[in-house]
Amino acid sequence: MRQHKLALCKEHYLEWIPAQTERFIEKYRMFTHEERVLVAVSGGKDSLSLWDILWQLGYQADGLYIGLGIDEDIGYSSESQRLTEKFAAEYRLKLHVVDVKKEYGKSIPELAQGTNRGRGKPCSVCGLVKRHVMNRIARDLGYDVLATGHNLDDEAAVLFGNTLTWSGEYLLRQAPVLAETSGLARKVKPLCRFYEREMTAYALLRGIEYIYEECPFAIGSTSIYYKELLNKLENDRPGAKLTFYLSFLEARKSGLFASQENIQAELHPCPNCGQPTSAPGLCSFCRMMTKKLTAESAETAEKK
Amino acid sequence: MRQHKLALCKEHYLEWIPAQTERFIEKYRMFTHEERVLVAVSGGKDSLSLWDILWQLGYQADGLYIGLGIDEDIGYSSESQRLTEKFAAEYRLKLHVVDVKKEYGKSIPELAQGTNRGRGKPCSVCGLVKRHVMNRIARDLGYDVLATGHNLDDEAAVLFGNTLTWSGEYLLRQAPVLAETSGLARKVKPLCRFYEREMTAYALLRGIEYIYEECPFAIGSTSIYYKELLNKLENDRPGAKLTFYLSFLEARKSGLFASQENIQAELHPCPNCGQPTSAPGLCSFCRMMTKKLTAESAETAEKK
Repeated sequence: MRQHKLALCKEHYLEWIPAQTERFIEKYRMFTHEERVLVAVSGGKDSLSLWDILWQLGYQADGLYIGLGIDEDIGYSSESQRLTEKFAAEYRLKLHVVDVKKEYGKSIPELAQGTNRGRGKPCSVCGLVKRHVMNRIARDLGYDVLATGHNLDDEAAVLFGNTLTWSGEYLLRQAPVLAETSGLARKVKPLCRFYEREMTAYALLRGIEYIYEECPFAIGSTSIYYKELLNKLENDRPGAKLTFYLSFLEARKSGLFASQENIQAELHPCPNCGQPTSAPGLCSFCRMMTKKLTAESAETAEKK
Repeated sequence: MRQHKLALCKEHYLEWIPAQTERFIEKYRMFTHEERVLVAVSGGKDSLSLWDILWQLGYQADGLYIGLGIDEDIGYSSESQRLTEKFAAEYRLKLHVVDVKKEYGKSIPELAQGTNRGRGKPCSVCGLVKRHVMNRIARDLGYDVLATGHNLDDEAAVLFGNTLTWSGEYLLRQAPVLAETSGLARKVKPLCRFYEREMTAYALLRGIEYIYEECPFAIGSTSIYYKELLNKLENDRPGAKLTFYLSFLEARKSGLFASQENIQAELHPCPNCGQPTSAPGLCSFCRMMTKKLTAESAETAEKK
């Protein structure tokens, strides 16, 4: 690990990662051993490793798998579900599964076809649905906090994208911990300071079976483009990615930005699902679902 | 010009650049026709073009050439001085020349050798000296404003570097116009919205003879590295560089950042030269000069 000037053997590496994770959890006051954590698990290396680490550290961490129905060529969703369930069974951990098609009538690619958001790529629809479902399950089942497996590469790429356009609202919302607000669970990212390659090494050394493939829709995405650019930078200037992310957190803490209230839109609860939204009336998720149903009934009426 | 979806013939291009420059001068309230402008001219395409444009637009613009004594292999300084003087003579413009070696006893490479700043590269010393001299001449000769030829590529690279480390004080100080403060002349960058390649095209089409070579010390510099990275981005996402810079200016205007006073160090006049400094006691320039002299007298004493 060039950025830390540190080289570890397998045994110490497998101790170092959980110890560092615990340090980050405490440093950013993410959650305590008394709180119930819901880990969003995709079947990939980051989220399965996160679940594994939290289990080792003795936290009360259950899993949530969201079946997106992205099966295209490679059976992406079914394979990631199989690996997630296998992991949960081996460790005897509690896993909640929400299947989008079963619950809402359509898979992510099907939902995406009917909306402007989904034109070309379903990534935006997928993000919207996942955020809605994660939040709903965390709230309905009384979890204190929702944990995701975002690593440093993910966070740096998002920060980079938002910085290129200086998108204030998004910039200020990016943090290792997002506090609970009325209707939204607290969200935490315990792996946000680990490089992607560190998480890959961890998953491999721990023998965690995870899905290697990227989501087939992610290919050619902007976030992957930014990751490649940042990898070039990291390669030429070791530590640049970590500095970029940490100095952003530091600058915000020391008052570089105006207070968030000046920037952030006002939120109110969606009249349908109760989750907070800045949109007037229904939230984006419910609007998408309503539009879909209206379009369908119009279609049915036409056929008659 | 992909970012504007605009293609122009030579004649219209040579009208468009000055017209746009005038628009920027007015938009950012840089200076008026009644004010006296001092243009810092290096002999490169940007600063000579700026001087040419201001002359065309009828502004009262005199030039300032600073002889740095960077002659190394290619006679960089003497050739750029020759071209600058030739330009001034042809246009019958007033040019002030300050030769660093004559005025301060040592050239930039020589000054750099004696200081920590200069270890390896003299760029930091060079910047310090140029800022000091430009400001001194502007103040002593009663100019209202100091204009430099920084183009969009320059500005975006500086912004990018400061963003990678979230250097608040530097971030907030970067602007098309820096207002006059006690002891510091107003500074403006009328070309800050033109791509480097646009300025190259302008200089070539106008038949301006400028020095093609980069400063020999700039090779391998961080700013050139950032320019290359941003060029890659621009190539893949046309307009990204302009968006990055303009959305930063926009975000600051709409209140993304805390007010500058919270961030900026307090300034006081240097007891030696009177220019403002945040350092306790002498400013960086005078400290460097004093150290040099002390070191020299120590050396002389030793020899005795």
